[in-house]
Amino acid sequence: MPATHAVRRDRLRQRLAALDAPAALLTRLVNVRYLTGFTGSNAALLIGADGTDVLATDGRYTTQSATQAPDLERVIERGLIGPLAERVVRAGEGRLAYETHDVTVDGLAALTRALPGVELVSLGAAVEELRAVKDDGEIALLRQACAIADQALAGLLAAGGIRPGRTELEIARDLDARMLDLGAESVSFDTIVAAGPHSAIPHHEPTGRAVQTGDFVKCDFGATNAGYHSDMTRTFVVGSAADWQRDIYGLVADAQRIGREALAVDADCAAIDELVRDHIAAAGHAEHFPHGLGHGVGLEIHEAPALGPGVTGRLGGHMPVTVEPGIYLDGRGGVRIEDTLVVGTAGPELLTMTTKDFCVL
Amino acid sequence: MPATHAVRRDRLRQRLAALDAPAALLTRLVNVRYLTGFTGSNAALLIGADGTDVLATDGRYTTQSATQAPDLERVIERGLIGPLAERVVRAGEGRLAYETHDVTVDGLAALTRALPGVELVSLGAAVEELRAVKDDGEIALLRQACAIADQALAGLLAAGGIRPGRTELEIARDLDARMLDLGAESVSFDTIVAAGPHSAIPHHEPTGRAVQTGDFVKCDFGATNAGYHSDMTRTFVVGSAADWQRDIYGLVADAQRIGREALAVDADCAAIDELVRDHIAAAGHAEHFPHGLGHGVGLEIHEAPALGPGVTGRLGGHMPVTVEPGIYLDGRGGVRIEDTLVVGTAGPELLTMTTKDFCVL
Repeated sequence: MPATHAVRRDRLRQRLAALDAPAALLTRLVNVRYLTGFTGSNAALLIGADGTDVLATDGRYTTQSATQAPDLERVIERGLIGPLAERVVRAGEGRLAYETHDVTVDGLAALTRALPGVELVSLGAAVEELRAVKDDGEIALLRQACAIADQALAGLLAAGGIRPGRTELEIARDLDARMLDLGAESVSFDTIVAAGPHSAIPHHEPTGRAVQTGDFVKCDFGATNAGYHSDMTRTFVVGSAADWQRDIYGLVADAQRIGREALAVDADCAAIDELVRDHIAAAGHAEHFPHGLGHGVGLEIHEAPALGPGVTGRLGGHMPVTVEPGIYLDGRGGVRIEDTLVVGTAGPELLTMTTKDFCVL
Repeated sequence: MPATHAVRRDRLRQRLAALDAPAALLTRLVNVRYLTGFTGSNAALLIGADGTDVLATDGRYTTQSATQAPDLERVIERGLIGPLAERVVRAGEGRLAYETHDVTVDGLAALTRALPGVELVSLGAAVEELRAVKDDGEIALLRQACAIADQALAGLLAAGGIRPGRTELEIARDLDARMLDLGAESVSFDTIVAAGPHSAIPHHEPTGRAVQTGDFVKCDFGATNAGYHSDMTRTFVVGSAADWQRDIYGLVADAQRIGREALAVDADCAAIDELVRDHIAAAGHAEHFPHGLGHGVGLEIHEAPALGPGVTGRLGGHMPVTVEPGIYLDGRGGVRIEDTLVVGTAGPELLTMTTKDFCVL
């Protein structure tokens, strides 16, 4: 949708005025995609304050770039920076904003060589900040991505897919296949299925370990839909549950509800994390929650805003974020419960619809 | 295998002496993995010329880092650079080598703040250069990764998996499932299945387009095995072949053979590409081969050395590389043939064993 991308580029152009920069060079691929629709693996974008934008890619993407970004002038060359730098020099621009969080130290040296006499200034995370606030089209894509994940899990559960004897790898592949069958373009990230003591490892990679009666089984997974990622974690018990499992599940579920309820326009991102963390700490599990509370989600599985200790910033409307506290007891097992929600003035919209009730499968 | 990783770190230590640097900070995750065995998604490594090495990661990876890198001192903290910088400052080191091709401009600013009075010098691509030359264990892993891909394709063909009416997406998912069934830990990259005119797009993403009689079907895919990637492309014709298809297939096959035969210890990487490119250009197809000839392959799907126009460097023994010329005729179709081979004094060892004969399925 070229019009959508042109609107986004115009929003970025407004930022350029504040930087007093006549042009910006975008090198972070996901940002180039956001601003142009082009999904190739090699690209850079020059944004001019005067409205002249140029997309650079290489010969592998001649057709694809013409299809995806028909509204943009395109340069097809092996080196991306050379032809774009030439434009900047030819236009006699004195300043160029660039992505200091993406360009490496070596990359800056190359830019400096290609742009003699041009002052290079930081664009900061301007595009990431724009990206944090989604438009209705993006939220619709996320809603659909989350619906695919919900349906895949529902199908897995209905088929008795999480049962004693089945391995973590088998369950993960089953879940992945169901998401692809339901139209996911890919999985959002390597699906986590962690059974028994493995559930105490926050980011466990599935193994050949078979599920046993009494295990926690933690599933963290998502689907992508036109580039937009869903993210959800559910933790079940298989067969029969012990008291300690009910206890920590209940604690995580309460903490997660506190986090969800704190999602509001203008809420402080560190304060939301602190609310949840304090609740877990009050139950004596401070050191068993070793990661941040949540993160934005969109074209990247982790993007702005971050919810965690020490982060800065406030939530805004139309920001999708995850809320995912966990408690992990080394050698025994762990629980994480994660939803994706969209912050809004009428309260957060829940996108991940699978129950969070304590379930013994 | 801690011993293997210690050997690699010692090789890097020898490079430090040449830089007159008492320590190096490794931030590129794949390089940290190569030097430690740790596969988490957040890590940094401090290598001391005096033999003291420290791995930093965060609380999600306490257990995993202890399992994968038991021989290393480990620091578990939310920020990676802080505790490592503290070590450097405490040791009174005056110089620190770092990865200028990985650290961003913002990252360098943070490093400079954390390391007052420490001179920061470029480590260059020292680890990537070490990684280009594989040890026997790595080559065995690559051989197995390639064998998985070969077997998956053989199974697909035996099942008549590439036939009229089947979509690119169905074929790609079938191939992926077969690789996973055969023990691949994942696919090397998003599998490319490109039918008919789509085969003229070098990096096509599979769609719902159904294969038709007379189509080229180009399959570019691979399996990973303990982190090592295989890479292979084969192009078939379905039903019946036209003369132009036989012609460009024959030309690409000849060009690919020329490339394979040029793989030798001390061969110039740009000259190998030129040999192949000249052959294709002599047939009038210069502009239809818009990408480099090949690349190293290992822990990354694309790594050193590169074979392409304008690259510098020479091949060495034990370097696995791909050879993958292609000819793409916009709107009609294209052919790419790609093998992975290991350079050696007794000639290259072919790892991808599927036939390259012209096949009409």
